[in-house]
Order: sequence, then structure tokens, then C-alpha cells
Amino acid sequence: MDHLREIETDGISNPREISRLAIDIGGSLIKLVYFSRDSSDHEDPLNDSVGVSNGVNGRLHFAKFETTKINDCLKFISANKLLLGVKVNSGFQHQENPTNDRSFIKATGGGAYKFSDLFKEKLGISLEKEDEMDCLVTGADFLLKAVNHEAFTYLNGQKEFVQIDHNDLYPYLLVNIGSGVSMVKVDGDGKFERVSGTSVGGGTFWGLGKLLTKCQSFDELLELSHRGNNRVVDMLVGDIYGGMDYSKIGLSSTAIASSFGRAISNNNELDDYKPEDVSRSLLRMISNNIGQISYLNALQFGLKRIFFGGFFIRGQSYTMDTISVAVHFWSKGEAKAMFLRHEGFLGALGAFMSYDRHSLDDLMINQSVQIPVDASCGTDTNYNPLERDLNETESMQCSVYQA
Amino acid sequence: MDHLREIETDGISNPREISRLAIDIGGSLIKLVYFSRDSSDHEDPLNDSVGVSNGVNGRLHFAKFETTKINDCLKFISANKLLLGVKVNSGFQHQENPTNDRSFIKATGGGAYKFSDLFKEKLGISLEKEDEMDCLVTGADFLLKAVNHEAFTYLNGQKEFVQIDHNDLYPYLLVNIGSGVSMVKVDGDGKFERVSGTSVGGGTFWGLGKLLTKCQSFDELLELSHRGNNRVVDMLVGDIYGGMDYSKIGLSSTAIASSFGRAISNNNELDDYKPEDVSRSLLRMISNNIGQISYLNALQFGLKRIFFGGFFIRGQSYTMDTISVAVHFWSKGEAKAMFLRHEGFLGALGAFMSYDRHSLDDLMINQSVQIPVDASCGTDTNYNPLERDLNETESMQCSVYQA
Repeated sequence: MDHLREIETDGISNPREISRLAIDIGGSLIKLVYFSRDSSDHEDPLNDSVGVSNGVNGRLHFAKFETTKINDCLKFISANKLLLGVKVNSGFQHQENPTNDRSFIKATGGGAYKFSDLFKEKLGISLEKEDEMDCLVTGADFLLKAVNHEAFTYLNGQKEFVQIDHNDLYPYLLVNIGSGVSMVKVDGDGKFERVSGTSVGGGTFWGLGKLLTKCQSFDELLELSHRGNNRVVDMLVGDIYGGMDYSKIGLSSTAIASSFGRAISNNNELDDYKPEDVSRSLLRMISNNIGQISYLNALQFGLKRIFFGGFFIRGQSYTMDTISVAVHFWSKGEAKAMFLRHEGFLGALGAFMSYDRHSLDDLMINQSVQIPVDASCGTDTNYNPLERDLNETESMQCSVYQA
Repeated sequence: MDHLREIETDGISNPREISRLAIDIGGSLIKLVYFSRDSSDHEDPLNDSVGVSNGVNGRLHFAKFETTKINDCLKFISANKLLLGVKVNSGFQHQENPTNDRSFIKATGGGAYKFSDLFKEKLGISLEKEDEMDCLVTGADFLLKAVNHEAFTYLNGQKEFVQIDHNDLYPYLLVNIGSGVSMVKVDGDGKFERVSGTSVGGGTFWGLGKLLTKCQSFDELLELSHRGNNRVVDMLVGDIYGGMDYSKIGLSSTAIASSFGRAISNNNELDDYKPEDVSRSLLRMISNNIGQISYLNALQFGLKRIFFGGFFIRGQSYTMDTISVAVHFWSKGEAKAMFLRHEGFLGALGAFMSYDRHSLDDLMINQSVQIPVDASCGTDTNYNPLERDLNETESMQCSVYQA
């Protein structure tokens, strides 16, 4: 994927001023969020909130890279002048902004520690580390409060946007599915606790999937799964019961009794299976497992709302459906799985918001970001947020306010 | 494996009278339990309970076969005259026992439905089906009440037998790890409910393991895992955090962040990994996941004791240790994982016990089975129940009583 070419099509070949960049470096993916000021800098016509007179209009941009390809990310930052306003100590040349006299960018995720020296060496900047859970929660809270049509349910193929009542948002369970999975109970503004997690997450899907199918990318593996049939690989209740249900305990003949269990009952080797079927079983196993563990944790703390984020989901129908069905099944309909459109960028958004908390004298972001309803994602006039692919570089319009 | 040869070394080449046979046919394994009367029929010297004057001494035998090799099982039953006392309608010849005028054997597991016709055709008998959960609980209850040194804890390499107080046995969570996993809340004698389960079980370990390593048997796969290192394949917290802990949330650098997550971060293909390492990661992932889900269910119902059974465990130190650590970690030491020596035969034992409930006028089994302490497993005078391998055909001495 040629990110430099893509960003040109995004209109940044004639760059607008970049005021802020934050980064989330996970085990598998690097996520960037940055703000570009509109050259016209007009006021947002949809915005009528207090402080509009100081508003700065522009766009929030989202981009991601594989962590193993971190050098591509560094080049992207440099080529697109994303460090404008950051005082660099060496490395790439750029125009300095005297009002933003800082020599760091906000960073979160474990890679903020691991790659700190690399950023210093290659870009001449420091990474100011923000706690990963802090950022996830801040990012989720921001999206849920500031962005309309951010959260939605997905059950039995039915998508439905959730209207968030700011006075009735808490408590909720935030499940972030990255390489691994974190489950965070959020009780209020800045009040949260990581209560659980599982190592069976996106890295498991990708890692096991790569070994089993020779796929070279996560998206290729997902694409395969669309065309697969998990019944070829999974042992169903009917396989054990001779085609019958085990009705006494409510298990239909088509319920999965044992993921990958059918692979034991014949002499097939890996090459005898279609990668599509293997990928499908894997996706189902992991999604279902995450849904179940999430529900059990929500139950433990009496939480009825579960928001799922993280780059594992990628707006995939089958993934969301499996998670939703798991939550619905185990909770007997009591708990609800909800998904976030900007699912993959919670941590990066949280890091982006964290500039504010440290009283920088440049732009006031945090709660003041205004994102127009539905017009939030750029130029596509027939935009349907649910069909939108957020995997690629993209942006949403917003306004920020000077403190 | 030559079962016929083995059974000869067990003394049945000169057969004792077989009074009862029960069978549990699961997705992966067939388990048999049968009772053979001692030819001397002496009273059990360790037994001083009521009813001893009517006691019949003998041995309970355990055997297992892969479900895919069901014909071996049928031959075994026939060759060893295990249907003595069962009125057959066709098929193999055998001596009839006029006091046991029935034409069925007790059977449980889904295979009791699936293979019903096969038993009729090949052995001339019917399978009288008993509910799988009923049998699991009956079998577990029997073992916990009647067999000394049946249950034990295993944590950090320390094995410790659990003294079961019959008046304080309930409630407990029974987790049976077969091809899939069932979790059953047991509240009292015959009072239970299947509250949860997961499709990520023994069939997943075997199925995925077979695809990943080309192993031909479950035991071979387990054997491989002993010599493996999961850190080669799993993404640890330290891999993400540049060798550091994520101490704020209590995750050490060596904690697994993402099972199989390391497979994404290099260009290695499946053949570049040692099967030992892959098997180890898989065993760890599945054991840990089962431990976590079990604990969450125990917590939901306020159960502090969790008994793990099923043929997935096979007395393996690493499996038990992982499950125990998971339960200990998530419960902060509040809940305890316990294991059962006859873990794989709960269902078959339950089916065996079920003869009684139907008021047969032959032998009274159920609560009246007496198994001598420690001397329960045959001829080995230096017997250590924890080092005993229960995978092979074996038996334990016991007495049954006529009604």
C-alpha cells in the first residue's frame, strides 16, 4: 500500500497546516490521528456552541500502518509535514511554528516505549507517553459524546445507530480488541478500571491465520473468511449427535460443539482444507470467545452496555454478528453489544486529547471538538457510515477552539 | 495400540464374570466402564459398611478408544465378552446370564444416538440412552463421594489431595473438557444446571494442533508440548512494551498479550516454527481460556470450588498448572481449581450408575460401590495416584451389593 500516494488523493499534497499529531503504537498496528486546519479557516456552519468565535475549522485525519513497517510510518510523518509545530532536535527539515514550542508528540501503546529511541533518532522528536487504558477510555468517551452516529448495534444483519444520552452513558464496558483484548469498566469521566482481558484477540486471528493459510495480511485473511464455511472445520452438535439437536440443554444440531474439532475426525491435512473455511472457523471462534468473556465480565459488574472497539473488527459483518450473537445468547438478550465507527483509533484519539490535559497554550481540543453530523466523513455525498471502510487513510471534518 | 493384548495382561484373558458395561461416546473418544466379579468373590477386607454380607467383590475397568475407530471398540467388547449378561438379538455368540435378562447397555454422549444402529447391527444390542449432563454429574458425584484421593489441587507444581466433606460438597462447578467444554453448576444430589460452556476445548487443541503440527494423535501432540516454548509464538507484553512490564495494570513483561501474536511480526511460515513451540502455545491458550471462563462462571454463581474433568487434561502438569493459575489469577486467590483422577470417565461412570435408577433386579451399584483407599488401582504397591497414567486401560478394585 502506497500511503504517500493515498495522502495526495486526500488533498494534502497541497498541505494545510497540521496543528497536532498523536500516535498509538500497538503490537500489530500503528495508528495516527492528526488535525489539519482549513486554509479558509471558516467557522463551522453547523456549530452554534459557545466559543465558536475562536473556532478553527479543519479535519481530523486517521491513518494506520503495520507495526513491523514502522519505517513507512516515519516516512509518512515526514513527507506530510505532520511535525509542523513540533520543535525537532535533528533529522528532517521543516517549518517551525513559534507558537507551538514543544519537542514531543503524544504517544500511547507499548510501542511508545519500544520505539522511543527510533523516533528520536529518525525524526528528532520525543514521544510523550500516555497510559494506554487512559487513552482508550478518553478516546471512547470523546467519540461517544462528540460524534453523532458513532455507536451502533448489529444483530442478525440489522444495523441500528444508538443515540447516546450524555447523562446516561455510564457505566459501560469498553472492550478493545487489538492484538490482545482489554476489558475496561468505565464508571464516569476519567473513572475507569481494567477489569479483564484475554490473549485471544486480533493477533491470534492474524497469527494463527497466517500460519494456517499463508495469508500475507490481516485484510486478506478477513477477505478469505467471507467466502468460507466453518462447518467444514468445526465439530457441530449434530456431528456428535448423529444430526440431532441436544435439545435438553438448548443446543441445536448446528451449534458449534468444538471449534476445529472436525479436523480430528478424518485424515485430512492442512492442505486438504480450503483456506477460506479455516479462516472462517478461526474468526468465528475468536469473535464468539471475546463476546462470551465480555458478557461474563459485564454481568459481573452489572453493565448492560458493551462497546467493542479495536482494529480486529474493521466493520466486518460476520465479526460483529458473531460477537453480538454471543452477547445476546449468553445474556439471554439482557446485554447489548455496540460497535464504534472509529473503532481502531480509540487510543490514538485519547493520546490526541491528552495534549489538552497538559495545559499547552496552543489549541484547546478535548470536549470542544465539533464534528458535523453525517457530514463528518469528507466528500462522499451518499455517505453511509456503516458501509464506510475505515481501514484506509481518511478524515472527518471538525472544529477546534483556542483556549 | 493393541487393546486385546493389553487386556490380557490385565488378567481378563482368563475372564472373570462381567456384570455390567456402560459406554460414553463423545465427539472424539469412546469411554467404557465395566465391572468384573472376582472369581473368588471374597469380601472386601477394607469394607465394614452396612450390607457387606451381600457384597460382590471385583474390579471396575476403564478403557477408551477414538470415536473414529469405533470398530476397534466393538471388537474389544466382543472379544472380552463384555456383553455377558446382556440378551443379544443377533451377532456375536456368548454365554447368557439368566439373571440379567435385558437386551441393552447404558450409553451416553452424542454417539449413543449416532451409533445406535451400528451397535444393533454389529453386536445385536440396543443402547439405552442416558442424558450426557446427568451422567457427568452422577459420575463426578460418585467419584467425589466414594473414591478417596480422587480430587486434588495443582498449583505452582504442588499437588495436594482434597479431603471431600460429604456434608459440604455442594455447590460446585463441574467443568468437563471433552471435544467441547460443558460447565455445570451442581447444587445437590441430582440437582444441577448446565450454565455455560465453550467450543474451545479438547477438540480444538487436537484439531488445530493436527493441522499445525501434522501430529497423528492427541497424546503425541501433548508430548510435543512438553518440550516447547510458547514465547517463540506468543506475543508477550514485553514484546510490545520494549521489554518492560505494563505495571500500572499488573501485567508483567512475560505475560501473554496475544496468543500466537508473534507469528505476525516476521516472515516465518508454519514450517519455520518447531511443532513443539506451536503445540505449547496452543495448549496454553486453550487451558488459560477455559480457566478464565470457568472462573467467571463460578463467580457469577458464587461457587468457590471448580472441579475439572474430561479427557483433555490427562493428568498433564502444564495443562493443570495453566488452568489453576488462570483460576487463581482471575479470582485473586478466591476460587480453587481441582482435578479428578478419573477425569475422563465421568460420563461413562454416570451411565454405569444409571442402571440402578431403573430398578434392575441384578446388582445394586450407585452409592454402594466401595473402593478401598489407595489400593484402588490394582497391583502397583508403590502406587502414586498422581503419577498414574489413566490413558490406558486400567481398573480399580471395588465391591458392589445385591439389592
